[in-house]
Amino acid sequence: MATIESGTPVMTLVNIFTVAPEQQAKLADLLIRATNDTMRHRPGFVSASIHRSTDGTKVINYAQWRSAKDFQAMRDDPDARDHMQAAARLASFEPIICEVVESISAPGKSDARA
Amino acid sequence: MATIESGTPVMTLVNIFTVAPEQQAKLADLLIRATNDTMRHRPGFVSASIHRSTDGTKVINYAQWRSAKDFQAMRDDPDARDHMQAAARLASFEPIICEVVESISAPGKSDARA
Repeated sequence: MATIESGTPVMTLVNIFTVAPEQQAKLADLLIRATNDTMRHRPGFVSASIHRSTDGTKVINYAQWRSAKDFQAMRDDPDARDHMQAAARLASFEPIICEVVESISAPGKSDARA
Repeated sequence: MATIESGTPVMTLVNIFTVAPEQQAKLADLLIRATNDTMRHRPGFVSASIHRSTDGTKVINYAQWRSAKDFQAMRDDPDARDHMQAAARLASFEPIICEVVESISAPGKSDARA
């Protein structure tokens, strides 16, 4: 599970992979395995949520790290690099580093900020 | 606040807006206002989290709806359409409808699924 909240000291990476539909499941599995085996044990890892698009052509990784420095250290790690190279053989990807401006819930929910 | 979890009956819409950096703040404000004024009061709205990229060129809306039917009903609503047309005048966008395959937290966190 992951939580999205503004004002928290978290760096967000939204990575959008474009993939052939017949490779979508394989790519999602690869990202889940890479996260479980490597990324989640690195300092500063907060969460990674792997999504598949209903049209079959995208996989989205919504990932959170404590800081850009921790994220960069992970990227320089040879194990993580092996995983990312395997992903790159299956798909093109567009990583977007961002921060939460605001997170809004439905009215009446216990965690709403109305 | 929003939570990401696999196995929940939620439809996820990741909408990636590409924008001129000088319009990024205006677009983020517009999406926050549209969400507060219109979307969050529609049946089936769960959450919307607005992000800005650190390079200034993207705004990402990570939104959750109870179902594709509720999401479509909102899109057909004239108020919501006005807001989306205002956003389209500021930016191009690529909406991706998807579902969570797996959400993984850091080891030792109370919500980890290790």
